[in-house]
Amino acid sequence: MTPEASSPGVRIIGIEGIPEVRPGDDLAALILGAAERQGLALEDGDVLVVTQKIVSKAEGRIVDLATVEPGPFARQIAQQWEKDPRVVEVVLRETARIVRMDRGVMICETKHGFICANAGVDSSNVERLGTVSLLPEDPDRSADWLRGRIEEGLGVSVAVIITDTFGRPWREGHVNFAIGVAGMLPLLDYAGQNDPAGYELRVTQMAVADELAAAAELAQGKLDRLPAALVRGYAYPKGCGSARDLLRDPERDLFR
Amino acid sequence: MTPEASSPGVRIIGIEGIPEVRPGDDLAALILGAAERQGLALEDGDVLVVTQKIVSKAEGRIVDLATVEPGPFARQIAQQWEKDPRVVEVVLRETARIVRMDRGVMICETKHGFICANAGVDSSNVERLGTVSLLPEDPDRSADWLRGRIEEGLGVSVAVIITDTFGRPWREGHVNFAIGVAGMLPLLDYAGQNDPAGYELRVTQMAVADELAAAAELAQGKLDRLPAALVRGYAYPKGCGSARDLLRDPERDLFR
Repeated sequence: MTPEASSPGVRIIGIEGIPEVRPGDDLAALILGAAERQGLALEDGDVLVVTQKIVSKAEGRIVDLATVEPGPFARQIAQQWEKDPRVVEVVLRETARIVRMDRGVMICETKHGFICANAGVDSSNVERLGTVSLLPEDPDRSADWLRGRIEEGLGVSVAVIITDTFGRPWREGHVNFAIGVAGMLPLLDYAGQNDPAGYELRVTQMAVADELAAAAELAQGKLDRLPAALVRGYAYPKGCGSARDLLRDPERDLFR
Repeated sequence: MTPEASSPGVRIIGIEGIPEVRPGDDLAALILGAAERQGLALEDGDVLVVTQKIVSKAEGRIVDLATVEPGPFARQIAQQWEKDPRVVEVVLRETARIVRMDRGVMICETKHGFICANAGVDSSNVERLGTVSLLPEDPDRSADWLRGRIEEGLGVSVAVIITDTFGRPWREGHVNFAIGVAGMLPLLDYAGQNDPAGYELRVTQMAVADELAAAAELAQGKLDRLPAALVRGYAYPKGCGSARDLLRDPERDLFR
């Protein structure tokens, strides 16, 4: 065995063949069934990374735009930027605070505290035209439910991360972020540790759940084509974490 | 062979045993030597991810604070926030624009266009107390040099990413970002592609170089302990890219 084979590092494996997810579907069964057909046996210490879209679909977080009556503010924004007023109305309903609104872009703080375009409301990758998807109501709870179902069904203890792709200030392109976490701490803490020269480390916390989310995207191929991936061989920080741990206290945020 | 073994997904392998890097060292030789001792043979299509700290050290981007004479603005900031005025002076020299300065935190736009704390000036993980490290002068050029040396020495064509750990607005924790890119495009473009229902995809560009940077950090263990990692099995977008491609045009940035 070569040294390479003995330290395989971290592996990211896309889970293939998850069928189209519909409201009420048992998402755990669909993911585990696909993994099994792929010959992929989940192991203790794996991280299962799942894109929010299939979680939202399973949880019925889909809105039929025909049922939406836009209010005056939604109509005004929609007219100004040539948007669908019903979609804008749904965005406003999901929004706790508008962080920026300019040139037709709405950067919103969601009720969960995530800051992203359109409060996570998305018209793409929904099965039916004329519908939009919302973020899961409580992505931590969704993650925890998946984790529980896997423990129950297979007897293995994994961490689960629910992700969404967000844009970032200052930088082009989207990146996968963690919006739900179960079975691990999302932050790895180096506080109080010194470098070899004795200086306290500049960086005290790494957002490893976001790094795992980003890593998983690399194995998911085209956007949402493989809506779940497994990260194996990463010793994540143990504990009962929440994606809320990743949200900066407004008092400490220079970019409110 | 199980299906799992036939589709190994993406692998991230930390490169172990890179010695302490000193100004003038041949970084390519140090990294390739360590990989060889590890039994790790670089292959066409691998991505070599290297933290900026060892690049900066090899390139002599280390400042002895004893040689720095702080100006009046540096002294004023240092006094207000109990900082070392010489470090503040170095930060100001590396800064093209101060994006935010509050509560002792300086978020700066570097001369390269990166927006990060202290313009990338760092007191930790430098070998000698009383010195600070700067970002490489041109991280794309550093990446391209490494890529050339690998092609020349081993006859394999890899992509190279130079990384640094930055904080983010709104979110806790640091994440690895790409600050130098060679041998690949940092953005994967989905423009004009539709989802199965016919809607144009909401997300048109994924910042895959940033996702590769984040993924690599997972195999690097404690901060900078393994300052280089290899990502294998990821079909990155081919082309001659630059980390500048990741910088948003100020005209299109709502968070200037």
